[in-house]
Amino acid sequence: MDRMKQQIAFLMEIDKVKNIFRQTYLADGKRKENDAEHSWHLAIAAFLLKEYVAEDVDVMKVMIMVLIHDLVEIDAGDTYAYDAEGAKTKRAREVAAADRIFGMLPEDQGGYFRELWDEFEAYESDDAKFAHLLDNFQPLLLNHESNGKSWTEHHVKKSQIYKRNEKIKETSPEVWEWMKQIVEEHIALGHVIDE
Amino acid sequence: MDRMKQQIAFLMEIDKVKNIFRQTYLADGKRKENDAEHSWHLAIAAFLLKEYVAEDVDVMKVMIMVLIHDLVEIDAGDTYAYDAEGAKTKRAREVAAADRIFGMLPEDQGGYFRELWDEFEAYESDDAKFAHLLDNFQPLLLNHESNGKSWTEHHVKKSQIYKRNEKIKETSPEVWEWMKQIVEEHIALGHVIDE
Repeated sequence: MDRMKQQIAFLMEIDKVKNIFRQTYLADGKRKENDAEHSWHLAIAAFLLKEYVAEDVDVMKVMIMVLIHDLVEIDAGDTYAYDAEGAKTKRAREVAAADRIFGMLPEDQGGYFRELWDEFEAYESDDAKFAHLLDNFQPLLLNHESNGKSWTEHHVKKSQIYKRNEKIKETSPEVWEWMKQIVEEHIALGHVIDE
Repeated sequence: MDRMKQQIAFLMEIDKVKNIFRQTYLADGKRKENDAEHSWHLAIAAFLLKEYVAEDVDVMKVMIMVLIHDLVEIDAGDTYAYDAEGAKTKRAREVAAADRIFGMLPEDQGGYFRELWDEFEAYESDDAKFAHLLDNFQPLLLNHESNGKSWTEHHVKKSQIYKRNEKIKETSPEVWEWMKQIVEEHIALGHVIDE
């Protein structure tokens, strides 16, 4: 029962990401989204959008990757995509969090989650590229639905969005086209700064 | 692009389950959990607890099943596990919701989600039994962490809990033992009524 005890302790520990709030608003614009909701959304999107990325993508692996990719924020907090100051210390904070949180699990399962998180962070494999595409596309869709609320609040610039998403064009030209259309629309509306 | 348009419309529609609140409290007891958070938690638990159920379980299928099992509540609302009145009309409300919501997707993907939801509802296959185990075990764990708050509020009886979970003993004796221990503890504490 020791093994199950570790698994359940981990499941109860990660309940905390339901209280880690992101900068993105829900589609209805009424409140910000938390990490658990975000991760749930990405896992479903992974299944639905797999046809737009490399054929060798392992969808189940990507689903698990996106389900756990934000757990480190239990200790490290959410660093907003366009927060230059926070970005400087983000990596060190998140690695310490990964050690502690994935370390709660039996070694085989904790090791596997850690591998997936490291692969996600490295952003090099086709699986990691798909996971990042989802991680960037979903908030963009929510921003679109909520009338660019988060972009406006943070005075986000076109160049920042394009820099952050530069690998997506290569990961999926179709998704890239969709994203570009949305960004251009919100530049025209004045929600994203044109520079 | 018509196909992608349907997929994205669906992804934005299901954002609404983030506002469908359940009767279970988060582990910290501070607020109730919503369907997106609950489903996220079950998908991770599906991966971690698969060793306690039948070997032929298709974990990826179960993950998708639990990720989408509550989408019908967008239209039908959450019916509390021990709400006898609500239970009478639950099925009809949820079937209409499934028709509409899964019908938003391209036929292949909507049809697959609908099959999974039907399989979950039928509660007969090993995959559905595992999904139900997760769906019942996770709120029990949260109830335990939050000091039986939801049980106390709803005057839940031991017999109701055991009736609801009667198939779990057969699905996983190990998980059943763990659940029984928790329930007995909360009977002793007076959070669950002993009848």
